[in-house]
Formats: sequence, C-alpha cells, structure tokens
Amino acid sequence: MDIVAGIDIGGTKTKIGLVDNKGNNLIQTNFLTKDYIDLDDFLEKITTSIEELNNQLPQPATLLGIGVGAPNASSRRGTIEHAPNLVWKGVVPFLDKLKSKTNLPSKIMNDASAAALGEMLFGNAKDMKDFIVITLGTGFGSGIVANGQLIDGYDGFAGELGHIDLTLGDGRLTGLGVRGGLEAYVSSTGLKRTILYMLCKYMEDSRFRDIAYHDLHGEDITKAAEEGDPIALKAFDYTAKILGFALANFTAFTQPEAFFLMGGLANSGHWIFEPTQKYMEKNLLEIYKKKVKLLPSGMKEKNAAILGAAALIWKDFKNDV
Amino acid sequence: MDIVAGIDIGGTKTKIGLVDNKGNNLIQTNFLTKDYIDLDDFLEKITTSIEELNNQLPQPATLLGIGVGAPNASSRRGTIEHAPNLVWKGVVPFLDKLKSKTNLPSKIMNDASAAALGEMLFGNAKDMKDFIVITLGTGFGSGIVANGQLIDGYDGFAGELGHIDLTLGDGRLTGLGVRGGLEAYVSSTGLKRTILYMLCKYMEDSRFRDIAYHDLHGEDITKAAEEGDPIALKAFDYTAKILGFALANFTAFTQPEAFFLMGGLANSGHWIFEPTQKYMEKNLLEIYKKKVKLLPSGMKEKNAAILGAAALIWKDFKNDV
Repeated sequence: MDIVAGIDIGGTKTKIGLVDNKGNNLIQTNFLTKDYIDLDDFLEKITTSIEELNNQLPQPATLLGIGVGAPNASSRRGTIEHAPNLVWKGVVPFLDKLKSKTNLPSKIMNDASAAALGEMLFGNAKDMKDFIVITLGTGFGSGIVANGQLIDGYDGFAGELGHIDLTLGDGRLTGLGVRGGLEAYVSSTGLKRTILYMLCKYMEDSRFRDIAYHDLHGEDITKAAEEGDPIALKAFDYTAKILGFALANFTAFTQPEAFFLMGGLANSGHWIFEPTQKYMEKNLLEIYKKKVKLLPSGMKEKNAAILGAAALIWKDFKNDV
Repeated sequence: MDIVAGIDIGGTKTKIGLVDNKGNNLIQTNFLTKDYIDLDDFLEKITTSIEELNNQLPQPATLLGIGVGAPNASSRRGTIEHAPNLVWKGVVPFLDKLKSKTNLPSKIMNDASAAALGEMLFGNAKDMKDFIVITLGTGFGSGIVANGQLIDGYDGFAGELGHIDLTLGDGRLTGLGVRGGLEAYVSSTGLKRTILYMLCKYMEDSRFRDIAYHDLHGEDITKAAEEGDPIALKAFDYTAKILGFALANFTAFTQPEAFFLMGGLANSGHWIFEPTQKYMEKNLLEIYKKKVKLLPSGMKEKNAAILGAAALIWKDFKNDV
C-alpha cells in the first residue's frame, strides 16, 4: 500500500497523518508545536513520528512523500516566512532541511492553499477547474484554483484574501495596530468583535451583555442565534453581508464555479451559508448571477488540514488517485 | 510569410490588422462598428477587409487564423454577452458564426484579457508567469495571467477587476444607477468625475471652474497638472490613491510580479505611475513589499488591441514566436 504523510503545522498543535490514495487518513498523531523551539528538534520529532505511525500500519506500507501545510509558507521557495504564530522567526528554509533529513519527495504550502488541493483531490471539488477554498477559523485563509491549477503567485504567496481590505483603509485594525482587512470581520475572531459592535450599536437585551469578550466562544454565538438572541442574529447577518460582498468581488477576479467554506465559522452552518449566499448573489455582476455556488467542504473537518497537506504529494501521483 | 488577423471590436470602431510572428502589425484598417447592425453584415465586412488587407501584402502570405478582442466576450463559449456598448444585443454566438464563414482557427476573448496575452507574447511580460494588465480608458479592463496561463474563469468571464467595489456598496454609481466599482474612480471617466469632486470639496481656484463636465478631456487634466493646477493635482493623487490601494488588494489574490497599465489614463505617465506605486507599496502586506512592479505596456498603444487579439492565435503557434 502506498501512503503519504500529511503534516499540518499550527501555532498550537502540529498534526501528522498517513493518508492513502483515496484520501483516508489511516492513522494520526499530534504534539505541541511550541515544545520544539529548535527547528532541528522539530524535524527530528516529525520524522520519528512518521516512522512510528508507519510501523503501526499493515505492511508493506510505502511512504511516497511528505506534504506540509503551514502558515506563511512559500510553495515556490520552500520556506516559512515571518509567521507570527510560530516559534521559528524570520525566513525558515523548512523544505531544504526536511529534504536533507528524509530524502523523500516533500512539499510545503500555505495551509489554506493545501486545503484547496485537498478539496480537489479528496473533497467536493473533484470535477472543478475554478474554485476558491476559504478557511474561517481564528483567521481567514484562502486557496485559489483556476484553470485546474493552484495559483502560487510570483514567489508563492498568492491567496491571502483575508487581508483584502474593502474599507479603503478605514476599517478594523489587527492586534498590532495594522489594518485588519476582511479577516478582522469574517472569522471566528471577527464574529466575536462584531458581537461587541452590535452590543454598542443597539440597545436590545442579549445574553452577551453578561459575557466578557475573552469569555466569548463562536459556538455560543451559533447557539444564541438558534435561540433567537437579537444581537447574535445581527452579528451573523453583518458577517454574512461583508463575506457575501467580498465573494461577489472575488468572483470578478477569477470567476470561480464555487466557493467552499470550512473551519470554525463555517460550522455555524445555515447561519452563515444562507445569508452569505443571499448577499453574494445581490452583489454579483449581471454576467455572474446564479452561476456561483457556495458549498461546504467535502473533507471531514477533523482531517481537512492533514488531507490537504497530503494532497500536495498525492497530486503528483494523481493517475493513481 | 505566416500572418494572423487581429480584430478589436469597440463600441465606436472596429480595427483589423495583420500581424506577423514578431508582433509587427503589418497593415491595418478600421470602420464604424455601428454601421453594421446586422451581425452577418458585420462578419461579411470583416472577412472582406481581411482579404483586402492580405492582398496588399507581399505574397505568399498565409493567414493562420483570426483573433478577436471584444467587450463582454466569453472565451469559453465564444460569445459576446449583453455588451452595453455594442449594437448586437443579448447573447451573440460570434465565434460559431465567424468560423462557419471562414473555416479558419478563430478565437474570441475579452479585450483586456487579449491585451494581457499580447503583453506576454509581444510586450514587456515576455518572461513573466504572473502579471495583470489593466486598461484604463473610458472604463477599467483587466486581464490576469497566473502560473503562465491566462485566467478564464468558470465560463470565461474572469478578470472584471474594474467592477470590484472597495466601498462596501457605498460608492459612485454607473450611468445606469448601478454600483460603479473601481471603474467609476479609476478610468478616464473616473478622473473627470474626480475633478468635479475636488471642485466641490475644495475652494481653490482652477481652470476647471470654467469648463463643463462634458467639455472635460483627460489630456487637459494631465496638461493642467503639468502647470500646477491644484484641482488637477488633487484629482491625480486621489485616483492614484484608490488605484494603489486596489493593486495592493489584488496582490493578495494572485500575487503578480507586475501590473501593466495601458490606455488613456496610463498615458498621463508619471502623474499616475508614481503616486500609484507609492500608495500600492504603502498598502501591501509585509510579505509582498518591494516585490511588485508597476510598468507601462511594451506594446505601442496604437496597435495594442490588435496585437492582443492576434496573440490569441499566435500563442498556439508559440514555438514560432
């Protein structure tokens, strides 16, 4: 059996799974990223973890390669650059180091771009040539496929749609006093900020008048909406309005057949999908109307990041998929 | 000698040229588009024009094919759809009709996308895989190249960046009461509208207080800027600020190596290039800073549209180019 290792490097956890050619994540493990401040120790941990996982599979299991999804990764240069949530600072030559350690085909990519490849190989975009995956978690990530290819950009940093600013520079800031862009509105964090905005703007009562910002959780906002909390309802509508407007704008760029939403905020289901679809449709140019789908990911969320990372390698063996 | 016919269909004029494999427009003609309300008459006029032009070239001259650039053209479907400035209404099966008349390899594409192909084959983008061409005339057109390929979109309408709206729906309208998008600000028309805005906002004197809107011309605004007219200077700065901001946003999409500006407003030269570069750089995400070029077209403007249209065919013979 042929397998590929998919690695998802996050600010908190690093997840590793072994994925077969159907997109089954056969076995997985994880550990705390920040326990490995030294990159060489981290790479050692990765390679021994892969070996341990592999030993638990029915043999023979042949490891074809290693795919890595990471924030601020340049697919073209094999680097992780200035990732604010990772312990390794500056420009990290991740891929060179990994390759010199394993001698296996290895690739690295922005995590959301990897998710787009995963969607194409193993998810709901199997027959699509033009689509965009949007990951709505703590932040807003994106991966763009056009003409059947993932768009890399000049040096591998294409697809940072969460940093597009629709306010001409007059909108919310990030924690660092920098212009926030869409991400500051449309993400789990953005939704929490919007709860504050609605509590400020309207005087209606809400359970959220008794909850401090730091105690707010995305799932609670969904639950409040289910129960008719007026502030939660307004917050979802506002979030969807901005996202729908943004998706209409994005359509004028690469005209995707579909947008896929995944991640924490996407798990709010119809509270986010239905109004977003409505606002997108309203704002689409005439030539795009009723042509753009808004879809959930076809990958089980638990495994999506690992599958995406594994897809980096599997796509080069795609005749077998 | 092998040649390709390049046809640029505009609201006013249709231009036809015969282009060799080096991008030389050997001979050309033009006529008024609206003189041919019947599409069959128009196609007849095209084919006889090509024949007449060809007869004037040193023989033998072999016509390899016909490339057409037109507004609202779908490259995937070969149609022109709901083009507001053309006399043929609805969905026009242009390519099918042309092919049945000539039996030659023929292609049609949005005019700005064709310009991007022209830039890649014959202009300043010869060695680039990721770039965006922006045509700033009466409107704002665009053609996007990523991974070395022109981006078509799901049904051939990608690259309508002039309709992206950075105002969350609160900006200028088009003539039809519809949301205007970038085009309403950044174009020859947009610059004229901005002159009015500046005359309204500021009380400084200006030659433009004596000129009615309908008598305003783009070249006069450039000339006024040269002479230090404060309203003209403010108008250029404002236009560049919005364009620079937009280009910074666009970079987060496909991360181009360069933006090429062409068309009437681009002819204002340093009045538009320098401040646009400044505002773009200011608004770029850290990972993009100092990596994105802002360049003039390498095609002579007079022929750019014809060369772009011819490039649709020449690219399929590109080993000869």
